[in-house]
Formats: sequence, C-alpha cells, structure tokens
Amino acid sequence: MTRDFSGIYTPLATPFNAAGEIDERGLAANVDRYIASPLSGIVVLGSNGEAPQLEDEEADRAIAVVRARVPRTRPLLAGTGRESTRATIEACKRAAKLEVDAVMVRTPSFYKNLMTTDTFVRHYTEVADASPVPVILYNVTMYTGVNLLPDAVEQLSEHPNIVGIKDSGNDMVHLGEYIARAKPGFIVLVGAAPSLFTATAIGAHGAVLALAGLVPELCVELVEHVKAGRIAEARQLQRRLMPLARSIGPVWAVPGLKAALDLLGMAGGTPRPPLRPVAPPAIETLRRQLNELGVLETSSAAR
Amino acid sequence: MTRDFSGIYTPLATPFNAAGEIDERGLAANVDRYIASPLSGIVVLGSNGEAPQLEDEEADRAIAVVRARVPRTRPLLAGTGRESTRATIEACKRAAKLEVDAVMVRTPSFYKNLMTTDTFVRHYTEVADASPVPVILYNVTMYTGVNLLPDAVEQLSEHPNIVGIKDSGNDMVHLGEYIARAKPGFIVLVGAAPSLFTATAIGAHGAVLALAGLVPELCVELVEHVKAGRIAEARQLQRRLMPLARSIGPVWAVPGLKAALDLLGMAGGTPRPPLRPVAPPAIETLRRQLNELGVLETSSAAR
Amino acid sequence: MTRDFSGIYTPLATPFNAAGEIDERGLAANVDRYIASPLSGIVVLGSNGEAPQLEDEEADRAIAVVRARVPRTRPLLAGTGRESTRATIEACKRAAKLEVDAVMVRTPSFYKNLMTTDTFVRHYTEVADASPVPVILYNVTMYTGVNLLPDAVEQLSEHPNIVGIKDSGNDMVHLGEYIARAKPGFIVLVGAAPSLFTATAIGAHGAVLALAGLVPELCVELVEHVKAGRIAEARQLQRRLMPLARSIGPVWAVPGLKAALDLLGMAGGTPRPPLRPVAPPAIETLRRQLNELGVLETSSAAR
Amino acid sequence: MTRDFSGIYTPLATPFNAAGEIDERGLAANVDRYIASPLSGIVVLGSNGEAPQLEDEEADRAIAVVRARVPRTRPLLAGTGRESTRATIEACKRAAKLEVDAVMVRTPSFYKNLMTTDTFVRHYTEVADASPVPVILYNVTMYTGVNLLPDAVEQLSEHPNIVGIKDSGNDMVHLGEYIARAKPGFIVLVGAAPSLFTATAIGAHGAVLALAGLVPELCVELVEHVKAGRIAEARQLQRRLMPLARSIGPVWAVPGLKAALDLLGMAGGTPRPPLRPVAPPAIETLRRQLNELGVLETSSAAR
Repeated sequence: MTRDFSGIYTPLATPFNAAGEIDERGLAANVDRYIASPLSGIVVLGSNGEAPQLEDEEADRAIAVVRARVPRTRPLLAGTGRESTRATIEACKRAAKLEVDAVMVRTPSFYKNLMTTDTFVRHYTEVADASPVPVILYNVTMYTGVNLLPDAVEQLSEHPNIVGIKDSGNDMVHLGEYIARAKPGFIVLVGAAPSLFTATAIGAHGAVLALAGLVPELCVELVEHVKAGRIAEARQLQRRLMPLARSIGPVWAVPGLKAALDLLGMAGGTPRPPLRPVAPPAIETLRRQLNELGVLETSSAAR
Repeated sequence: MTRDFSGIYTPLATPFNAAGEIDERGLAANVDRYIASPLSGIVVLGSNGEAPQLEDEEADRAIAVVRARVPRTRPLLAGTGRESTRATIEACKRAAKLEVDAVMVRTPSFYKNLMTTDTFVRHYTEVADASPVPVILYNVTMYTGVNLLPDAVEQLSEHPNIVGIKDSGNDMVHLGEYIARAKPGFIVLVGAAPSLFTATAIGAHGAVLALAGLVPELCVELVEHVKAGRIAEARQLQRRLMPLARSIGPVWAVPGLKAALDLLGMAGGTPRPPLRPVAPPAIETLRRQLNELGVLETSSAAR
Repeated sequence: MTRDFSGIYTPLATPFNAAGEIDERGLAANVDRYIASPLSGIVVLGSNGEAPQLEDEEADRAIAVVRARVPRTRPLLAGTGRESTRATIEACKRAAKLEVDAVMVRTPSFYKNLMTTDTFVRHYTEVADASPVPVILYNVTMYTGVNLLPDAVEQLSEHPNIVGIKDSGNDMVHLGEYIARAKPGFIVLVGAAPSLFTATAIGAHGAVLALAGLVPELCVELVEHVKAGRIAEARQLQRRLMPLARSIGPVWAVPGLKAALDLLGMAGGTPRPPLRPVAPPAIETLRRQLNELGVLETSSAAR
Repeated sequence: MTRDFSGIYTPLATPFNAAGEIDERGLAANVDRYIASPLSGIVVLGSNGEAPQLEDEEADRAIAVVRARVPRTRPLLAGTGRESTRATIEACKRAAKLEVDAVMVRTPSFYKNLMTTDTFVRHYTEVADASPVPVILYNVTMYTGVNLLPDAVEQLSEHPNIVGIKDSGNDMVHLGEYIARAKPGFIVLVGAAPSLFTATAIGAHGAVLALAGLVPELCVELVEHVKAGRIAEARQLQRRLMPLARSIGPVWAVPGLKAALDLLGMAGGTPRPPLRPVAPPAIETLRRQLNELGVLETSSAAR
C-alpha cells in the first residue's frame, strides 16, 4: 500500500561552511527545527537546496545527515533529477539505499526542443520502473525552461510507482488539469508560495515551499483555513505572506532564503558561487518582512 | 455615489449578415436572451465582439441597438479603447452620449516597448478625466502583448472616475495583487473562464466571460457556490465547464464562440475576415460540449 | 510591367502642431529634405509615422500632402494595414486614389492565436485582389506580436499584385528564407537599421529605415559599399551607425526619432499621446550621436 | 603569446555502444576523418557531444581518446561548463591536464533570474583566473535559457586568459556587438550554421558547427568565398547548406546529427536517453539532403 505524501513540506537549504563544504551540523540543526514544527515532511536536494550545484558525493552525504534526523513518521523526499535517464536512475537508487521515502525527479531540460511529452513519458517510465522507492514528478519551468504538460502527467499518473507531482509554477489552470485528469490517489503539490491559497482551494493535496522553512506554522494554518471553509481568513493570511514569499522567490531566490534563515538564527549562510549573497538592503527588507509576520526574536528585530 | 459594477457579465458577440454588415436584429435577440438570464450585466464591443475590426459608426450603432434592450437596472459597459489617447476619449464620449453605464478601456498596445506603467497611468488619467461615465481598465495581454501591472492599477484605482478593472489573463498572483492593493471599492473582474473559480475564491468581484454568453446560469451558480462556501461543488462545476471554456478561449476564440451561439439557436454566424469560421469538426466538438452541459435542445443535440 | 521598388526608403515621421493636429507644413518640409537626398523613395503612414494613432481622414490628408511633394520618379509607398480585411481594402483604395505607387500592408494582429499562415495568405490575397496598386507585405513582429513566416511569404510572392515585403525584424535567417524562396523579382526590404549591412550582404533588395530619415547619405553609402564588395568599409560604417540606430529603434523609438529630427532642424516635435516626448538626457545622447556622424550644424552641436 | 583560435571547428558527437557506454573506437575514427579535412580544429564535449548527459569520468576519457588523435597543430577545445563555479574550475583543470588547447565554458544557467551580467563576470573571472589553459566563453541561449550580453563579453574580453567566445545563436546584432566591443585579438566564433555566411560577413573569426562535421569542405569553402569577396558565391552556398543545417539544428538536433553521421559511414548511433533516435522519415530526409550536397557514396545514396 502506498504511503500518503500529501501535506506541507519545506525544501532544505544547503548551508556551506567557510571552506565552501556542506555545513552538516547546520543542516542537521535546521532539520531539528522543522521536526519541532507542524510540517508534514521534508525535501532534501531540491532547487532551494542548490542541488544542481552539488556533486554526487555531497548529495549522498546531505541525504544521510538529514535521514538521521527525520523520524520515520514524516516523509523524507530527495531530489534526484539528472539530465540523462541513466544518471537519474543511479541517483534514485543511491537515495533509496539511504532510505528516503520517495524521490522527487526534476525534468531533464537541456535539449529543450526535444523535451516533448513523449520524451518525458519514456524518461519517467524508465526511472519509475527502476526506482526502488516511489517517484514524484517535479516540474519547475522557471528554472528549466521546459514544461511538463497535463497530457504527460495524466499518462504518468497511471504508473504504479509514480505517486504525485510537485509543480513550482503559478499556473493554476495547469494545476487544476493535473488534479482533474490524474489517476485518483495521485498527489498534486504546489511549489509556489504565492499560489498556496489558490492551489489549496482548487484541490491541491499539499505544497513544497521554501516559505514553509521560515514560517511553517503560518503555512499550515493557511491550508487549515481553506479546509475548514474559512476562505476570508485564508485569503487574508495569503496576503500577509505575499511580500516574504516574493522576496525568497522571484526577487532574491535562494540567496534570499539563506539570508532569511540567518535572520531567524538558523543555518543559512553564503550560497555556492556563481550564486552570490544578497546585498545589505535586501537583508533589511527581509528582516522587516519576517518581523511583520511575528517570527523574529525581539532582540533580532530591534537591531 | 458610484454604481456597483460587480457581478457576472457576458461580452456580446457581434453577428454579421450575409453582406458582412452588423445583424442588428440578431444582436438584439441575443441581448434579450441574456436579459432573461441571471447575468448582472452586458458588455458590448469587447474583444469577443470583434471591436478591433469594427468602424466607429458600426460601434456606435451596436451600442444604440443594445442600449435599447438593456434595462437600466443592469449595467451596460462598452469597450472604447483606441491606440491614441484622444481617439479613446472621443470613443468614451460617444458611448456616454449613447447612455452606457461605464466604459471598458483596453490598454493601447502598438508601441509595446513604450507601454510602461508611467505611460499607462498618464493615458488612463487623461481618459478618466475626460470621460463622462466611469472607466473600467481592461488588460488583455494575450491579445495586446502588453501588461498592466499592479503598480499601475494601484495608482489608477485612486482616480475617482476609475471604478475597476477587467483582466482577461489567468495569472491569479497578479489578480490577487490588484485586489489587495487597489483602493477599497475598486472592482476586479476576471475575464478568463478557466480561472472563474480561483478568481472568485481569491476575492474577485465578478467576471466578464464569453462562456457566460453560452451558459449564464452555470457561471452564476459557480460564483454562488463559492460565496456560500460550497468549495467542492464550485470546483466540480469549474471542471465541468473547462472543456467549453477552452474551446471558445485559447483553442478557437471568437469563431468558436460564434459557432456555439449558432448551435444554441442564437445569432453567431461568420466572423469578419481575416477571422474565419471554425471547421466542421470543431462544430461537432462544441455540440458535444454544450450537450454535456445540458444546454442543447434535444432535437439539436440529436442531429 | 511592374515598377522596381528596390532601394533605400525612409518612413516619414508625422509632425503635430500645438493643437495636436498634423503639421502639414512641417511634413512637407521634411519631404523636401529627403527629395534632395539620394534616397530611392518615401514611406508615409508607417509605424514611425504613428499610423496606428491617426484617424482615416488624417491619414488621407498626410498622403495628399506628401504626394504633392514627391516626384513621380521616386516611389511613394503608403501604410494601409488595418485589423479587418475590408477596412484594409478600403484604405488601399483610398491611398490608390491619392496616387501612391504601392501600399505597404501591415499584418493584422489582434487575435494573435488565429493569425496563422492560412489566415495571412487569405487576407493578403483578398487585399491584393482588390488593391488598385501593388501590395508590399509588412511584418513588424516587435509591434504586432505576430510573425509572417517564410511559408506565407513564399505563397504570397506568387500573387501578381504582391511585389515585395518589408520586414522590420533582425532575424536574418528568416530574411534569407524570404529571399531564397520567393518568386524571382519579389523585393525584400529590411526595416531594422542594426541589420542593414547583414541584410544587404545576404541579398536584400533595399531597406525602409527611420535612420535614413536622419542620415540618408550614410545609409545609401553603406549599401553601395556592399554592392561594390567593400565589405570592411561597409562593416565599419555599420558600426558607426549602430548607436543612433539603437537610440531611435529599441531604446526610444518614435519619440527618439522625433527628437533627433528636431536637432537636425527638421519637423519632429511631440508624439501623439499616449506616446511621450523623450526626456532631456535622451536629447543630449541623440545630439552627441548625430554629432559623431557629422550631421549636426556646428552651432547646434556646440550648444 | 596566445595561440590563434580562429577558424572552422566541428564539435564531436559522442557515439555510444550497445551497452550505452562511449564507443571509443568510433569516436577516434570520427576524429581521424576530420583531421583529414581542412577543418581548423576540434571541439570535444560540446552540446552536440551530449556533454550534459556524460559523467565526469566519461568526459575525461573522451578527451583522452580525442587528444591522442588530434595533432598539436590543430587546436583541441573541450567543453567544461558546470553549474557551480568550483565544479567548472575542476573540470577546466582536468581538461588542462589532459592537454587540451583551450576550454569552452558554457554559462551556468539553472537559477535563471540570478544569471546577471555581474554574476557572469564574477563566474568567468574566477574560472579564467584558475584555468591552466585559455578560456573561451560559450553562450547557447536556445539550450540554457540565459543570455551572455555584450556588456559582459566586453568586460570579460579584457581578462588575459579569456581569448574568445562561441555564441550558438542567430542574433547577428548581438554578434556584431561582441566583435565591435571586445578587446582586439578576442575571437568571436559563431555556432549556428544558418548564420555562417552572415556572421563571417560581419567579421566573425570562425565557427563551431555540427554541420562542419558532415560537410567540412563546404563550410570552409563558404568562409573562403567571403574572405575573397565572392559574396554571391558565398550566399549561394549558404542557401544550399540551409536544409541540412536546419535538420541537424532546430529540427532534429543531436539525434539528427547522429543519424547523418551514420549515413556517411561514420560513428553516429543512438543518443543517450532521454534523447531518442530520429524516426525513419527523418533519416530519408537527411539522406536526400546529404545526397544533394554530394557527400553520400553512390551506393548509400541509391539505397
């Protein structure tokens, strides 16, 4: 019987030490903070974890560190997408050996004009056939420049080892099609915080949000408002979350997320080059936005 | 005191006779059908009315024909956007003289790189200063290739003679920004049927939908579900409406709408060239989609 | 026998007086300046002439004023594109009655998703069937958001009353396809000054350039360099022209062109709103660029 | 003193055996064919070599195999771009140890909104500081979705260890800017066969073309025509090359190139999944196009 992967997740940032290597202690501490929150589960090696900038050994090590801290009661997902089908399969097998609960497989994307629905269906079918753990599709057009269309998702949802999709876009027509056309039981997770309320309202089964790594309680609360039919409250909360959601999304992306983690006393730090830390004015904006959401310690907020 | 322009509207198609002139009788009959429906109001000379393909005298005549049929209790809006500010103002004045309740002013768009927020704010301010009737902004990026950003809408919402916006896109993040940032009382209408449910859920005050010209009762019902907190029913109805919404939107557009009107026994007919009627297979698809929504006469559906 | 429409043209700006009406005297004076230059011909009512912002009566008047000044030995082309096929045909007939030598017909573009090759072929065929004077296709994707593909151009080049195309893009692969696939004798004119050298090198038969309205002699010289095989000189001249070409193209467009005309002592002036005049720093940049090309009077340059 | 990297190169396809491993014998045989041609040099591990789909050890092995066959008189370039700056530097060092003459470093591209000119300048400066061999920038927007702008290229051309750029786009305005603004001696190579003639005409110093892996003699001939001022012949040859250039470029990309190599009796074969071999009709088209260029053996063409 398949595990239920619905709910609210946060992708982990990958903190680095002064030498540019993974800060394992910081990574573990961040996980501990999330385990103490109402989040449903954790994603390691997502786009927010700078996965495309990590070597395979680093990726494996990150999974091991995180798995040791995440109790079996909460799903741990690991990003394992690569450009070639065979490298993707190898990454899935390594992650499975490290006991993740499912793999989240980003679309290959380099040869954009060849990334058709047919190509994606073959790729994911081969990956899902070979993966020892369930596969979650991962569509992130803003970074890949390719799009996994509802036709592909509908077909792939029939595969017994493909259990869901995370889509990081704000296209709610698209997301609604996934929900309406996929096999019953197929999980649709939204990956864009600005659309958390709308995605939940149209029936998404959860979310994977960097924002939930900063304000997990508020993200969970928003979803509960929707489920309880408290539409006005949900909408109002979405509006409160919007400035921070944009800061760590389209505006400053991963470097913004890391700066915000630093402000919260968690392990953020410098992203791996060519990514650069945000500039000081961005930090002040983030401080103000976190403070307005009531999650900064007084001392920190007062600085 | 400003009139309340919230609610569900349909834009009128503009039927033509065999000579290619406006079929005034057919236009009037279509209006009568809508007045017998629960629709809040009517839009004449929108994109679905082929406004960019009509001469000024034709446009004036269409307004006059429609105004004669629409009771004062229901708002009648007329599209009056032109490329130049002065031509737009002239069109607004003519429409006001013909006693429309408000004008819906599409963004100018030809010189795309010059269509900045500053340009739009000046343009709409001059138009609103001069228009004898209230102005509703109209953003339809899929046809214009330009975008009226939330910054512009926030500023323009302060003008006493600008009462709302119709946005025909599916970008719900954008629409949410309009709602959150505009002056209280400013009306936000969605113009994309695939987003009717989500737009209403996030707080839109209404919609202008070609789809509402085919199934007005169902569009109104969907909105009432949302308002009453019947989210599951609303979502379900949205899914039922989706195939037809797409057929008369991104797939076949105005020619698809006109063919669907013909199937319903209303006045649709041939669009004005260079637009072309849809091909026979499209008509069969539309017939099936209308039938599945229960709005085709048995005799017609059985053909 | 068809007239030869190859060569270098400039599109006329449309100067307005303080009341916002066409400054006919200024328009005529600009024409006189060009007739004294080596330019092959003149285009009235192009995109640089703010044609989409003019009323039909103004357009007719502009043609009449210009025709009176352009000798029969130089081709006068008039822009007559409209959104509907019938309005386009009417505009062609009016222009023909005013004795233009050919009409330059911009693609219709509002219903973007319906603007297929099939639609364009039907539209232009009907227009060319009805036009009393030869038709030149006009593709300006940066303003219309639609693209006239080589397939359409190849088919349309077979029509006896379609004699050429002006394409305002920088896509030289595209332009090369037009040249290679169109019927012999079909004229391909480039409309983007940054590509004047390359277009001429690949075999374009001429150009329609706002830049040629500022430095006609240099544009003609560049083309003659290419024809004489003086590639290094042509390339060098292209580089010298680039800054000004960009200023009156992608950077400031029509308002930039008008400011540059003012600096040359010609009739430029304020564009029609919503277009706005360029800001003072832009004028200084234009002055410097004109000066570097040696076309400013000493007194003016020294200001 | 810096070596001269101008001239015509071909990127090597990477042939695989039935087990999906690199076919080293086939790779070496292909190199031998090119060494017998008038090509200036060879690129290993470009986009056409499926570099993004190879593991680091495979990449190293491919370089070693190729280096053993390429005489020191012809430059051997190796693709070494990675997403992180440090992985890129490591790849450059490994390639240098394997004695390539220069590295061709594709832009990082995953975090598209962060890939600014500033980011690129820092990234390439760090890479060039650390690379033991000269660096050639590599911009391939159609696959990366990011663009290395002339501002970045101008700045980077000042670095003593950055000797040129390969740009795979058809934007000749862009390419002309590189040439005009980069430091003297900086080499600009075009990577798009449809623009070979125009790029050479505007002053590009060479090309890296998959097409040159099929018809090296014709590519070299075209460039010589331009250099000798035989513009008409060059243009004519460009047109003859166009159908094949498009087949192995925008139409079928790498799988098309591999099928064409097979038709020539060279080592092409199946691309690595998720890429798929082209379908049989594509093979027939390629056969016809190769035959029209006179490079198929009679027996093969007659099949």
